[in-house]
Amino acid sequence: MRALRPCPPASAASTNPVPATLTHTGALPHMNLNISHLSAAYRAGSLKPSQLVRQLAEKIHAEDTHHVWIDRVNLEEMLIYACQLEAMDPTSLPLYGIPFAIKDNIDLAGYPTTAACPDYAYTADQHATVVKKLIAAGAIPVGKTNLDQFATGLVGVRSPYGACKNSIDPDYISGGSSSGSAVAVALGMASFSLGTDTAGSGRIPAAFNNLVGIKPTCGLLSTHGVVPACRSLDCVSIFAGTAEEAHAVLQVAQGEDHEDAYSRRAPAQAVHSFPPRFRFGVPRTEQLNFFGNPETPALFAHAVQALTAIGGQAVEIDFSVFLNTARLLYEGAIVAERYAAIRPFIESHAEAMHPVTRSIIQGASKFSAADAYATLYQLKANQAQAQQCWDEVDLLVTPTAGTIYTIEEVEQDPIQTNSNLGYYTNFMNLLDLSAIALPAGFQHNGLPFGITLCAPAFHDLALLELAQRLGR
Amino acid sequence: MRALRPCPPASAASTNPVPATLTHTGALPHMNLNISHLSAAYRAGSLKPSQLVRQLAEKIHAEDTHHVWIDRVNLEEMLIYACQLEAMDPTSLPLYGIPFAIKDNIDLAGYPTTAACPDYAYTADQHATVVKKLIAAGAIPVGKTNLDQFATGLVGVRSPYGACKNSIDPDYISGGSSSGSAVAVALGMASFSLGTDTAGSGRIPAAFNNLVGIKPTCGLLSTHGVVPACRSLDCVSIFAGTAEEAHAVLQVAQGEDHEDAYSRRAPAQAVHSFPPRFRFGVPRTEQLNFFGNPETPALFAHAVQALTAIGGQAVEIDFSVFLNTARLLYEGAIVAERYAAIRPFIESHAEAMHPVTRSIIQGASKFSAADAYATLYQLKANQAQAQQCWDEVDLLVTPTAGTIYTIEEVEQDPIQTNSNLGYYTNFMNLLDLSAIALPAGFQHNGLPFGITLCAPAFHDLALLELAQRLGR
Repeated sequence: MRALRPCPPASAASTNPVPATLTHTGALPHMNLNISHLSAAYRAGSLKPSQLVRQLAEKIHAEDTHHVWIDRVNLEEMLIYACQLEAMDPTSLPLYGIPFAIKDNIDLAGYPTTAACPDYAYTADQHATVVKKLIAAGAIPVGKTNLDQFATGLVGVRSPYGACKNSIDPDYISGGSSSGSAVAVALGMASFSLGTDTAGSGRIPAAFNNLVGIKPTCGLLSTHGVVPACRSLDCVSIFAGTAEEAHAVLQVAQGEDHEDAYSRRAPAQAVHSFPPRFRFGVPRTEQLNFFGNPETPALFAHAVQALTAIGGQAVEIDFSVFLNTARLLYEGAIVAERYAAIRPFIESHAEAMHPVTRSIIQGASKFSAADAYATLYQLKANQAQAQQCWDEVDLLVTPTAGTIYTIEEVEQDPIQTNSNLGYYTNFMNLLDLSAIALPAGFQHNGLPFGITLCAPAFHDLALLELAQRLGR
Repeated sequence: MRALRPCPPASAASTNPVPATLTHTGALPHMNLNISHLSAAYRAGSLKPSQLVRQLAEKIHAEDTHHVWIDRVNLEEMLIYACQLEAMDPTSLPLYGIPFAIKDNIDLAGYPTTAACPDYAYTADQHATVVKKLIAAGAIPVGKTNLDQFATGLVGVRSPYGACKNSIDPDYISGGSSSGSAVAVALGMASFSLGTDTAGSGRIPAAFNNLVGIKPTCGLLSTHGVVPACRSLDCVSIFAGTAEEAHAVLQVAQGEDHEDAYSRRAPAQAVHSFPPRFRFGVPRTEQLNFFGNPETPALFAHAVQALTAIGGQAVEIDFSVFLNTARLLYEGAIVAERYAAIRPFIESHAEAMHPVTRSIIQGASKFSAADAYATLYQLKANQAQAQQCWDEVDLLVTPTAGTIYTIEEVEQDPIQTNSNLGYYTNFMNLLDLSAIALPAGFQHNGLPFGITLCAPAFHDLALLELAQRLGR
């Protein structure tokens, strides 16, 4: 068993025996992991953390048909967390006994952090700041999840641990790069999970697995203990079943961190809600792209109607600066951030990388420092232009992705399909926005569709509040 | 004569004759160009703009012994400005009839902008935003001033238009890169002048010519119409004889500009003054460097005493993060910003550049985009570390430069002398600070010494107010 900090030694489990009241596991597929539900059960005394983790471990340690996991916390370790909690009042911690999964580019002390590249792996000697905060708040880590290698991709298939399968139809992609984290929640193996989101990695998997995905304002959650993708643009993201749950997690996970140079303090005047009658931007019809999907346009139109129904006024906006900015992320020198993030590794172990990931990141070596600055100037100009949008509207709504692909479709055309998925996502961090991905109905084949609401930085709480108004 | 916009045609001068009351020019060396003095004279009716420019033009168009000018506005053109003003009430414009000089990397419509590189020159078809604002406020442009080529240097000798000479002792350097702008004011040929300041170009020449130099918060003054040096770090600076005058100019020149992506709006809570009893940081003794100058340490100690005398409490701070950041500016990939700024030119006309400037900027071609991002991460970390300083002190005081060099000394060792001059200046814009360079006494040889006060962004007005408390 791996050393755990700040957990007591393994022997604590035997001196503090866990009541083994749950021997029946037949109800596993129907376990309700909703945070409010679990919290109420703990408070009522009808459930103990040790009972939960015994049930859950069985499910988590069953055959990993969807390629969700890179590493799983074993029952004995989960029980140590549970036992510590059982010595405490269930009302004393906001996430008391709530199980969560962690994308495997985020450090969990004592576990390897692989970033889905086994040759890159290192064993974390301390928790990432966000993991530490969540555990301190009572949450129980259950495993490290699969991802597109080095968090580079929106598909979920670029991993030597297997293509992560969609939770609803395993022929389809889960979305990425935070693929396993989304599927773990969607399949009921965690109440919530941590992802990361540089280009859309916290939103696309939410859309494809019918979840809420918060892409917080960059710097609101610490990235200390997270493998960088594009360090100036990375953030830790949250998957949950509902906006209310995501909100509860965000409140714990956020906070300034002197260990992270990109950490930011939310301004005193951060907006906590939009007005009852608000204005939301929608891209011009010809700027929307559903990539040939016959059903998603109607689903998006329906989502726009839903926003109108709760007091929103739709305003058609020129989406071109957002689209131009999205293209900067992979078509310009910014990809060199990914190179800088793993430079010693790629310069010595390129052959150990996933071939698609390697070709993308190695492509950065053609860019000069002058190219990088030219890209930054272009970005700055785009930021100034995009800023004008917020004089017209309070927020913006787009599809999270215009369509979804099968695993086979992505493997046959790994770059173009990925690029299509980034159409509505790649600009977000470049323009310093806060965003939330929300479920928005289903196609006839049962696959979900999602929308993303976005607003300027530090509108995270306002977006969550609006999601709740939408009943998400 | 060059076309002037928005001036009336030259014929206006003859239809609106100027009273030629000033035929005696013997008093030229003693002209008082102080802004308050001129304004009072205009308001009292004892002076008219046309009288001023007739006197001034004679001085400006005399032999340019100090290599101040790259281009000078001729009398006929100055009179057009003067005549326009004389049709107006002297109290109606804040800079009514105030003559100013413009560094020749800032556009004055109808004039070539050379950046001290004749082969690079282009004729500006409109004023830079700051020039436009100043002229609209009644100021009269008198000429384009000499500079270190492409604003790269702190010495004032890297120019094909000649080494700009110190206003007090012509064997010494004027400081750069805004060399001519400082000397024009110091020699009484302009009330104030515009420079630019990326690494110290608005402060070093102030120190070496006994002037006040404002290095405003980046983005406070528009850089639209300015040849970039490091575009993410450039600002337009102001030279004047006193803090009061500099303040008057700043009030006119500042302001958000949609033409400049790096333009910023001053926050509503911008600090307008420091408290009566304030805390100022001073680098540890071993972190101060006077480069062997036997007199400047005592002048600096005296300046620290002067700050104490007006209510300041000196706090010794660890200056190392500031020094480490200063080194990033020329030793890291940031120099590639200078390459990016003139890329088409340097790639086709490198031979037309000053050899020192060329060697510095061409050195950037060895840096990759990944290097540039690595430097940005280092900078971000330094910014976070430096931020802690402001929990301890309200402002920081340093020498502007530890010593001064003769032109010959700089020409014998152009890189090291320049580097020494940047010891206290190079970090300023990298750490997003506001700063003001102030006169602080004289060496026995008559050459001036200067100090710089700095504080976080948008403390410009507070620094000016403190300078006035110091009697500067």
